[in-house]
Amino acid sequence: MTHTPSDSDPPVFDQTFQDQLFELLRWRRDVRHFRPDPIAPSDLNRLLEAAMLAPSVGLSQPWRYVQVQDPKRRRAIREIFKQCNREALAAYHGEQARLYASLKLAGLEDAPVHYAVYCDVSTDQGHGLGSQTMPETLQYSVVASIQNLWLAARALGIGVGWVSILDPQAVLAALDLPATWELTAYLCVGYPIEAHLDPELERRKWEARADPGSMLLIR
Amino acid sequence: MTHTPSDSDPPVFDQTFQDQLFELLRWRRDVRHFRPDPIAPSDLNRLLEAAMLAPSVGLSQPWRYVQVQDPKRRRAIREIFKQCNREALAAYHGEQARLYASLKLAGLEDAPVHYAVYCDVSTDQGHGLGSQTMPETLQYSVVASIQNLWLAARALGIGVGWVSILDPQAVLAALDLPATWELTAYLCVGYPIEAHLDPELERRKWEARADPGSMLLIR
Repeated sequence: MTHTPSDSDPPVFDQTFQDQLFELLRWRRDVRHFRPDPIAPSDLNRLLEAAMLAPSVGLSQPWRYVQVQDPKRRRAIREIFKQCNREALAAYHGEQARLYASLKLAGLEDAPVHYAVYCDVSTDQGHGLGSQTMPETLQYSVVASIQNLWLAARALGIGVGWVSILDPQAVLAALDLPATWELTAYLCVGYPIEAHLDPELERRKWEARADPGSMLLIR
Repeated sequence: MTHTPSDSDPPVFDQTFQDQLFELLRWRRDVRHFRPDPIAPSDLNRLLEAAMLAPSVGLSQPWRYVQVQDPKRRRAIREIFKQCNREALAAYHGEQARLYASLKLAGLEDAPVHYAVYCDVSTDQGHGLGSQTMPETLQYSVVASIQNLWLAARALGIGVGWVSILDPQAVLAALDLPATWELTAYLCVGYPIEAHLDPELERRKWEARADPGSMLLIR
């Protein structure tokens, strides 16, 4: 991952690439159903390389990727998820609750690779540039890195699922990490069982996609 | 932006596309120096299409893109930036302060297109799925949409600069927006004056990029 600006000219991305990029954006899914097949370490390295090419406020690079492999720690994460899922379920009623319970919200059982993704809010990198008025941009930088990883994964035929039904403090303890690290996401990574153009939540009638025009305003 | 899952098979992204995607990730910059040339409305529509193909917690789609065109409102935004920039500058000393002041932190003067990007935290979309334990995932969904837009823009030869040295409350007032909308980012969009492989902050010796291995842990 050495960058040598002098030895290359700016690339021009042609129509073919642009069209394929939009295909990639359209076919990126939040995957919940994984095959157990392992992922080659070289491919995992490419995913992390993509993540770390993300923008970060003041070039702070606050992302920390923790690959969770130890079976005991994985079990602890699953227990945290189950507990939080029970509590989340209690907030819904009737048909909505039934649907919620059926959504199989975690690929935690099957995905061969798990990343707990953190933001080190104590980092000196970047010297605080740009994050005084909006300190949350530190966490936002980590999210940008996750989206890079997600798209790179889809390009390699690899699925990613973002689990947010977790108690961040409990996860931090289970993984024995520094107190200044904030959990941004818990990612399940693996080859998907099926590919879809529509989100599972849309397919299962949980929610529909909104009209893009309704989300644009002119001022 | 109609999605018709039935009429297409899952695409396979070949090595050529994968390599180009990584080129795109490497050449995406936080742009501060824009040409004033306008951007075709059809290209702006593609950027917003890319944004709205992002993942969102519970399919909540909480992103709201506000295109800021009114000269009075733009002037108000610049004044907010200048005030916040002065205050930010006061926190640095000597050489660092000089460097900070020279970084030309905003393309606010030159960029032909401005988007204030918001998160509607009051949205009913998604019925709260996945955001009970980690409510910040609502804002994170908006960040993912920005990263999609950013990459699509670079593919079209368009630059994006993220301005975070702004007081979110002052911006909300200047744009006369609902109180339940939280500012995620203020984006300057336009054709860049130059293309670079290294971030401006690295080129200007503000900060260097860290060794990727230092940001990975095994647990």
